[in-house]
Amino acid sequence: MTITRADLAALDRDDPLAPLRDLFALPDGVIYLDGNSLGALPRATPARVAQVVREEWGSGLIRSWNDAGWMAAPARVGDKIAQLVGAAPGSVMVADSTSVNLFKLLGAALAARPDRRAILSERGNFPTDLYIAEGLAALLDRGHQLRLAEPDAIAAALDPDVAVLMLTHVNYHTGALHDMAALTRAAHAQGALVLWDLAHSAGAVPVDLAGCDADLAVGCGYKFLNGGPGAPAFLYVAPRLHEALRLPLTGWLGHAAPFAFEPGYRPAPGIARALVGTPPMLSLAALEVGVDIALQAPMAAVRAKSQQQTTLFAALLEQIAGTWGARLASPRDAARRGSQVCLAHDQAYPIMQALIARGVIGDFRAPDILRFGITPLYTRYVDLWDAAAALGEVMARGEWQEARFQVRLAVT
Amino acid sequence: MTITRADLAALDRDDPLAPLRDLFALPDGVIYLDGNSLGALPRATPARVAQVVREEWGSGLIRSWNDAGWMAAPARVGDKIAQLVGAAPGSVMVADSTSVNLFKLLGAALAARPDRRAILSERGNFPTDLYIAEGLAALLDRGHQLRLAEPDAIAAALDPDVAVLMLTHVNYHTGALHDMAALTRAAHAQGALVLWDLAHSAGAVPVDLAGCDADLAVGCGYKFLNGGPGAPAFLYVAPRLHEALRLPLTGWLGHAAPFAFEPGYRPAPGIARALVGTPPMLSLAALEVGVDIALQAPMAAVRAKSQQQTTLFAALLEQIAGTWGARLASPRDAARRGSQVCLAHDQAYPIMQALIARGVIGDFRAPDILRFGITPLYTRYVDLWDAAAALGEVMARGEWQEARFQVRLAVT
Repeated sequence: MTITRADLAALDRDDPLAPLRDLFALPDGVIYLDGNSLGALPRATPARVAQVVREEWGSGLIRSWNDAGWMAAPARVGDKIAQLVGAAPGSVMVADSTSVNLFKLLGAALAARPDRRAILSERGNFPTDLYIAEGLAALLDRGHQLRLAEPDAIAAALDPDVAVLMLTHVNYHTGALHDMAALTRAAHAQGALVLWDLAHSAGAVPVDLAGCDADLAVGCGYKFLNGGPGAPAFLYVAPRLHEALRLPLTGWLGHAAPFAFEPGYRPAPGIARALVGTPPMLSLAALEVGVDIALQAPMAAVRAKSQQQTTLFAALLEQIAGTWGARLASPRDAARRGSQVCLAHDQAYPIMQALIARGVIGDFRAPDILRFGITPLYTRYVDLWDAAAALGEVMARGEWQEARFQVRLAVT
Repeated sequence: MTITRADLAALDRDDPLAPLRDLFALPDGVIYLDGNSLGALPRATPARVAQVVREEWGSGLIRSWNDAGWMAAPARVGDKIAQLVGAAPGSVMVADSTSVNLFKLLGAALAARPDRRAILSERGNFPTDLYIAEGLAALLDRGHQLRLAEPDAIAAALDPDVAVLMLTHVNYHTGALHDMAALTRAAHAQGALVLWDLAHSAGAVPVDLAGCDADLAVGCGYKFLNGGPGAPAFLYVAPRLHEALRLPLTGWLGHAAPFAFEPGYRPAPGIARALVGTPPMLSLAALEVGVDIALQAPMAAVRAKSQQQTTLFAALLEQIAGTWGARLASPRDAARRGSQVCLAHDQAYPIMQALIARGVIGDFRAPDILRFGITPLYTRYVDLWDAAAALGEVMARGEWQEARFQVRLAVT
């Protein structure tokens, strides 16, 4: 099948999600395929943030904790995110960073399975998940082991010593999508809890935490939720576990009566106990704008477009990639793929730098991955053509061999 | 001595810090004496935040982590805060909330004193400090005890079982100021580490962490640093401890090579290991504006004005308070007081509500405290007169007895 740019333009014309792109302020001359690292700016965000700064903070001052709804914001935005991940109201809280939330929930999970010593995860999981588990095990110093398995061997690695199965739903490096329902069942069959990292899922792929009977989850606000750089993260605790779980970070905003200033800690009812310190309101206000947009897009339509776009983009990339020895690093089956397409190539770093210099922004993931994120809310079909064509020119002209792209940056 | 409003106006005319007030956007009709809960908005903040949102996020997108200096911001702002608290460059990091930072440093302190079981603190410490210690002890489940002493009995409560002395430098409830040098010496003499909470100190009173040989500290960005609601907090680790301390929250941004995506955790050199997850850049950008202003004000001048203002305000309040049975809850000696004045009264809550209704904003702290924060960067001497006069009228007219002030809000 030969795909033409006109075919892609036709798909854009028929795309029911196309009008949502106008809700984002994307810069001219850029094809942005890195929304899975930092989502784009919603047009409504600057005004909302300015309102929080000038009116709510500047004029309202301390009164805005009540009068402007700041105190209620983490739970309010949490309830909105709950709708995106199949969670009941009152089971999701916005708080802290993904890493800190992983620590809170892993700590609670290990305390809930005191006789078990294994944390099971995927070898290629995002490093912070593994680092946090490693740090927690070192702190506890009770012989907990981080057990790592390849993606297809996870179910087989479950046994009665596993306290918690901690997995990222969509792998950051390959885009491979785990079967949440099946793995949760398998973990429960062994008496383990399950902690899902939804960093690359929330807002991008269907998630049904309640339907899968998941125990715990964390997720990121600044990727597909378009909450802005370092937006606060979120966490989920199944309602059946609310009263039993002992979260280790017992800060004052998770207290049953934060302003009673009682000497001893009493957890707030339900998910409210997952709050720790004062939330960063400017960043939280921006997150809410992004979440509100995500709620406008039916998830079935988002997923359908994402699958079609990743499939088309993989096809276009392979046409090009075939000529220079890259291989598709993402699953070939769209049903097993999140909203990204990855190529592996030993010159991935300079190639991506050359592509970025042309205004096509994906990212490099060490050691050899060219990663392209698809955000159905704003990615056009023609963008895929133009990005693949740019990559073809970078390769045909050897642009990536220019000296300026050969310096490996410390931070990419 | 009778103080007149004209005396206070004269002090304003002679105040070398008076011009700094113009750097803040204070609302009309408000006397703001709650900068120790949420600092006021700097005039430069809206434009800086808008720049981060529109240009750095909106146009720069993911590239801004390098190109706009986002990745370097936590250490850069940390180095600025270091100048305010007597710390060497490279020893302060902006990260997370005060509560989360307390957990990180307490966890490291207990690991560094494995044979000791006591965390010593002050009975009237801010509750989150005590709650965090309680949660950590429960997580570790190794018999750690939170030992609480009255302010004057802390040194006597030190013994060889104390792993860490955790104190808030200025008490949130009374404004009482601990002698950091003496208590640090006393703790070290017993082999304990010291963790100082600078929430009510940074930017308000002189702090010399290095000069006192303090081990660890945390502090708040949204009080006297005027960083905005929920601004990120900071933490300090003495350079001599950097390599030995094992911080329990080992997130990817504290890794020696975050973008190498190595499977195992290797702490970054120095204080950089104290980062955990991605920092909330909108809130962090606002914090930097506030810190930059604080750096313009010589601390000696800030402290001199603060002491003079708290002394004058206490005198004015006592003139009024004498007629209705309140008592001064702050130390009478300005040298032993932070930058706040507190009165105790059994009707403190409705009285403060009535005062706020008149535009004089202090706060209520359960069970019986009227708290007034002095921010020398923007508090005028005449504000003290006007606030005291308003309180006098509230009492003389019985305004606090109006029904609308009698409902105790859940959050105040």
